[in-house]
Amino acid sequence: MRLLILGCGNVGRRLALALATGVPGLGGTDVVGVCTRRHGALINPGGIDLASIAAPGAVPPWSPGHPDSTELDSATAVSTLDFDVLVELSILSISARGEPAASYVRRALERGRHVVTANKGPLAFHGRRLLELAHANGVRLLFESTVMDGTPVFSLVREGLRGCRVTSVEGILNSTSGLVLDALERGAAMEAAIRAAQQAGFAEADPTHDLEGWDSAAKLAVMANAWMGADLSPLDVSRRGILEISVQEAQGARDRNRTWKLVCRAGIESGVVRASVKPTLLPREDPLAACGPTDCILTIGTDCLSPFAIRQFEPGLADTAYGVLNDLLTIADARE
Amino acid sequence: MRLLILGCGNVGRRLALALATGVPGLGGTDVVGVCTRRHGALINPGGIDLASIAAPGAVPPWSPGHPDSTELDSATAVSTLDFDVLVELSILSISARGEPAASYVRRALERGRHVVTANKGPLAFHGRRLLELAHANGVRLLFESTVMDGTPVFSLVREGLRGCRVTSVEGILNSTSGLVLDALERGAAMEAAIRAAQQAGFAEADPTHDLEGWDSAAKLAVMANAWMGADLSPLDVSRRGILEISVQEAQGARDRNRTWKLVCRAGIESGVVRASVKPTLLPREDPLAACGPTDCILTIGTDCLSPFAIRQFEPGLADTAYGVLNDLLTIADARE
Repeated sequence: MRLLILGCGNVGRRLALALATGVPGLGGTDVVGVCTRRHGALINPGGIDLASIAAPGAVPPWSPGHPDSTELDSATAVSTLDFDVLVELSILSISARGEPAASYVRRALERGRHVVTANKGPLAFHGRRLLELAHANGVRLLFESTVMDGTPVFSLVREGLRGCRVTSVEGILNSTSGLVLDALERGAAMEAAIRAAQQAGFAEADPTHDLEGWDSAAKLAVMANAWMGADLSPLDVSRRGILEISVQEAQGARDRNRTWKLVCRAGIESGVVRASVKPTLLPREDPLAACGPTDCILTIGTDCLSPFAIRQFEPGLADTAYGVLNDLLTIADARE
Repeated sequence: MRLLILGCGNVGRRLALALATGVPGLGGTDVVGVCTRRHGALINPGGIDLASIAAPGAVPPWSPGHPDSTELDSATAVSTLDFDVLVELSILSISARGEPAASYVRRALERGRHVVTANKGPLAFHGRRLLELAHANGVRLLFESTVMDGTPVFSLVREGLRGCRVTSVEGILNSTSGLVLDALERGAAMEAAIRAAQQAGFAEADPTHDLEGWDSAAKLAVMANAWMGADLSPLDVSRRGILEISVQEAQGARDRNRTWKLVCRAGIESGVVRASVKPTLLPREDPLAACGPTDCILTIGTDCLSPFAIRQFEPGLADTAYGVLNDLLTIADARE
């Protein structure tokens, strides 16, 4: 199986490391291209030496002396290279409405290639059309790592809820917000709480994306589009972030045996899918409140069986890379 | 697809009702036989009229005047009838070590037929050999409903944890015990607590099977055999039930902000799979303690990603029937 990888941050490098080490079921998998947005690309139809991607310190930009180094941009690579699976690992852009990743995914599907994406953008902004396109072209579009990293969520619904209709989802899906809310409840000021979340390795240098609820809104849009036949974008999600919560409000919650969580909800109301993200004051005994500061949790309601929840404990980067691997194994198994 | 169903209790009747109503993806599915242990059988190679199984009040024994009524026993049916999938829905027998169900499952697999079982016995007592037999004969042996009813557990591990090794499971898997422990904590005597669980429709007429931990031990054995390559039986599980807990102990827990749960654990220690069921006094903040009296929860640890838990809220009989349907859909989809 020949992979074309777009993006080479932590997840891409971990993926390369796993492939270099050898993944049973993915034997004979070659990475024929790795393209970054601003740091160049490597192309080798015979398979790039994975050590040059995965080795500690081998972060792009790669040396111009690298035998596979090229000026090829991502768009040209997706349109012209010979590959079996596009692996899209670049960063979500809300302001660019999921582009350019969405266009790369569309182009690959149009060319009859499978796609695995850990980037929420394509599914969050164009989920319905892309899924229809994949179906029409007889290829897979898989995105396990877009929600709760690699914890099985999409594969669970796909394989474990056959014949069911998902009617509602409710959850807590952003660790940075959880960590900041927890610090506020303990009496920290907003700025200090954010800094602590950054030091803990959760919050990005610019954490507004998480704290304003965009990350959660994008995840909700992916699920609504994938499971409820919706055609939502993150801009359609009713959204409030956590920045407006004061330390006074946060501390008061604890005194009243309650806790703030950034709660995501989507459901079908009178045939229309509605989705919201908002800070919510939960009683301690609420199933969502049991979730630790950095944990994520998702409750799924269906028309087939009792609701159930899946909770991820202390997620890490390895989880995201694993989700991509699971998607690749799903494709590889079906090709056998 | 032609089904031979063994057992016709609540789950079998609900399954028949679903098939009679029509399940997308299972069109063209016929039930060619329904055999009960003591209440006769119906056989019709052209497909039994499902209304005669599913109609309210149509519980076996069926009228001898039923056009499909026969004296054929289960063993002969499994060995001689022409069917594609054996659906084993009879009751677990610990004293008979999973028999006769295990032999029926073995015989069907030997004949190259797929098997779906909601009965824990075959997998709990002979999981490893039966799974090897299914593999050797190129057929599926599926058992989603054996743990947490139809909540996706086995399909989750099968499809969502490709390439992972399950290294530990921990959970609360028996609603009757949960309900009784909750009543004890509230001050009820053991007998009254059991009666209340029976009235709530959870406990069986003879609830010792649940209260002595056999149901939990069987579920642990199924998971250990399916996921950890173990060759355990419920008799190998270190087991204590809840009958020895006194009201004093139970009430005392609540005063100390703790709660009793019948906790199941299995894990690999020095290469050996060990499993235990025992009443455990948990701090309220323990993830397992958050589970309501009738809820089930299962935490899964792997070598690939952070541990995660799946929690089922207020399970019902419909869930068990759905798990069987999901297994049948899995087989039907692969036959296409």
